[in-house]
Amino acid sequence: MIEPRPGTSTTLGSPAGPPDLAAVVDLLGLMACAELLAFERLAHDATLAPTMEDKAEVARMAVAEFNHFTMLRDRLADLGVEPGAAMAPFAEDLAAFHRRTAAGNWLEGLVKAFVGDGLAAHFYREIAVHLDPATRDLVLRVLADTGHSQFATDRVRAAIAADRRVAGPLALWGRRLVGEVMAQAQQIAVEREGLTALIVGGTDRPGLDLAELGAMLERLTAGHQERMAALGLEA
Amino acid sequence: MIEPRPGTSTTLGSPAGPPDLAAVVDLLGLMACAELLAFERLAHDATLAPTMEDKAEVARMAVAEFNHFTMLRDRLADLGVEPGAAMAPFAEDLAAFHRRTAAGNWLEGLVKAFVGDGLAAHFYREIAVHLDPATRDLVLRVLADTGHSQFATDRVRAAIAADRRVAGPLALWGRRLVGEVMAQAQQIAVEREGLTALIVGGTDRPGLDLAELGAMLERLTAGHQERMAALGLEA
Repeated sequence: MIEPRPGTSTTLGSPAGPPDLAAVVDLLGLMACAELLAFERLAHDATLAPTMEDKAEVARMAVAEFNHFTMLRDRLADLGVEPGAAMAPFAEDLAAFHRRTAAGNWLEGLVKAFVGDGLAAHFYREIAVHLDPATRDLVLRVLADTGHSQFATDRVRAAIAADRRVAGPLALWGRRLVGEVMAQAQQIAVEREGLTALIVGGTDRPGLDLAELGAMLERLTAGHQERMAALGLEA
Repeated sequence: MIEPRPGTSTTLGSPAGPPDLAAVVDLLGLMACAELLAFERLAHDATLAPTMEDKAEVARMAVAEFNHFTMLRDRLADLGVEPGAAMAPFAEDLAAFHRRTAAGNWLEGLVKAFVGDGLAAHFYREIAVHLDPATRDLVLRVLADTGHSQFATDRVRAAIAADRRVAGPLALWGRRLVGEVMAQAQQIAVEREGLTALIVGGTDRPGLDLAELGAMLERLTAGHQERMAALGLEA
């Protein structure tokens, strides 16, 4: 199931061995926990919706996250891992992240869904190239956009068109979200060595060197700036 | 689509004409609104879960409510009705109901899901016999239990077994819920004559007489007492 793919070694600058199972379980546990909490958060943001139609649309987004969660949970179970145990190491950090970045209103919730989840999804996609094909396919399926981005950008752009003054606070909010996501990622990287080794390599497995890591961070930053621009906000 | 069913007239004590479309739209709008708000409320109660497994189970219940909502919404659209407009008359009352009965902890949330939704479902089933077959089938499909009752009763009974003292406050909570549901139903009955006419008849359509209405209330009360007993609580 876990096999090296052609082309990867060039990207990594050295032949990459397969990531160990513990690291893959960590990644799936992290993503499962993140999807379940994203469900909760979007369901809460649905309560902020100005109309029943908007409420239903955000509820639909929440349900999509829950369905992603079940895909990841089932995969963990298939690997012989107790899903709750795989998710537990991340529960407190991710819950704290959501408390720190609780949306204060409808538009903040939409920006968070688009900018925060967009950044996380981009990061998971970068990691995915280092995974065995079966896990990679699952991760990419979970990350497939289900039309949420269009909804969020439509609504935020319309709100800015209606009242230009909402743009400034939302731009600040977007910047704060990136800072919080980055701080969160760093925290998890420190606590979960196996997960970090998926990207930067470990004692028995090479990974990105500093220049490659820098290039990845540049790509993540560029992706974030594109998303802010799509919302009509300054990054 | 709307046709009298054999046997119904006997139950009603008089030959029943078809309920008018406005009343059916009211019922579907009420149920759609209730399901969408039930989604929100259960998703919130998921945040109170003591474990990731319990959280996932309550999130699954919320997703089931959302799927019910989409069935009702699609049916409204099929009838040529704008779903948001059909739901709007009930949005404020139902939101106020949930604010008044917000669960303060995990067990209160489970009791509310089981006792409150159980009472509402029983009431809808009673109404369903007065509906055209297509609407009735939809209502009964929406009300089909998806294993939630077992989960709620298992968890509440286990909590009482572990600490007998939780039973008293939960019994009070259950009684308060019934009072709130009944007050809510009365409020809607006053505001939506067409919906009320589904049950008690209207100017051009006979319905339940007072004795029959009393019998229905007795059945609802008996159903409530059974659900409280299933939780191990005094009604």
